[in-house]
Amino acid sequence: MTNPAGPPLAPEVAHLSFLLGTWRGKGSGTYPTIENFDYTEETVFGHVGKPFITFVQKTKHLDGAPLHTESGYIRPVGTDRVEFVLSIPSGILESLEGTVSGTALDLASIHVLGSSTAKSVTATTRAYIVDGDTLSYDVSMAAVDHPLTHHLHAELHRA
Amino acid sequence: MTNPAGPPLAPEVAHLSFLLGTWRGKGSGTYPTIENFDYTEETVFGHVGKPFITFVQKTKHLDGAPLHTESGYIRPVGTDRVEFVLSIPSGILESLEGTVSGTALDLASIHVLGSSTAKSVTATTRAYIVDGDTLSYDVSMAAVDHPLTHHLHAELHRA
Repeated sequence: MTNPAGPPLAPEVAHLSFLLGTWRGKGSGTYPTIENFDYTEETVFGHVGKPFITFVQKTKHLDGAPLHTESGYIRPVGTDRVEFVLSIPSGILESLEGTVSGTALDLASIHVLGSSTAKSVTATTRAYIVDGDTLSYDVSMAAVDHPLTHHLHAELHRA
Repeated sequence: MTNPAGPPLAPEVAHLSFLLGTWRGKGSGTYPTIENFDYTEETVFGHVGKPFITFVQKTKHLDGAPLHTESGYIRPVGTDRVEFVLSIPSGILESLEGTVSGTALDLASIHVLGSSTAKSVTATTRAYIVDGDTLSYDVSMAAVDHPLTHHLHAELHRA
């Protein structure tokens, strides 16, 4: 887990502790407008002792060049729902909401915003499933006039 | 500057290099709905070799307890304007845009979004000025039915 010497986990996010840690692995992406691609990833879910979970994702091309990054925060709503706000350097802001079921999050965008020069993204879904020290996720995206379409799948392992 | 062993700075953000580094210092906050408060801060502006600047802010109460954090990305639009997207664990997402003039950024929100349980924030402005190794900023905010009101001022020094 993260923060072995840090503050104790806030009780409001105790049921989300299955996310905590540094996760590394591989993923693959598809979208109608681009070539299929593979990537490596490091994602960190952390906390600072307050009632939210921090999130930073960094992916790289297989040659090691940086590919994608995004960061944000997961907010608990009771114990069975969460809000997830995140920003992406492509100029996209996403506000997702959804359910917590055991060690799975199933989220859909409520709002997606783009800065003036960002490409149009209109909706996303994200599903995260943790099984022991393995995290897998799927992301779908509606963008540049395409409907909600599967975009990313990855399988990561807790460091 | 950051990333001495990292990739070279992308030419699209060369004119924003004045921001790069780890900045530490003190700030103070006011708002009509709360008591005035002082805080310490560490803010990092970085890059990964791609045409954006990364931003992570962390503030603490004077007793060392974590106070606020937010993170996001600055995107150049030519050399005299930027977009700044960021997420805040209070459930707020901000898309700001504005000018670059020398070593100063003058930004105002285009969109502010809140997750379902977030407090209402409707507009913000941010002004950052770098003078050598000193960064000062001012943040104003319209929130919870108050008009745009000065909220934060801090002065930080590059580590």
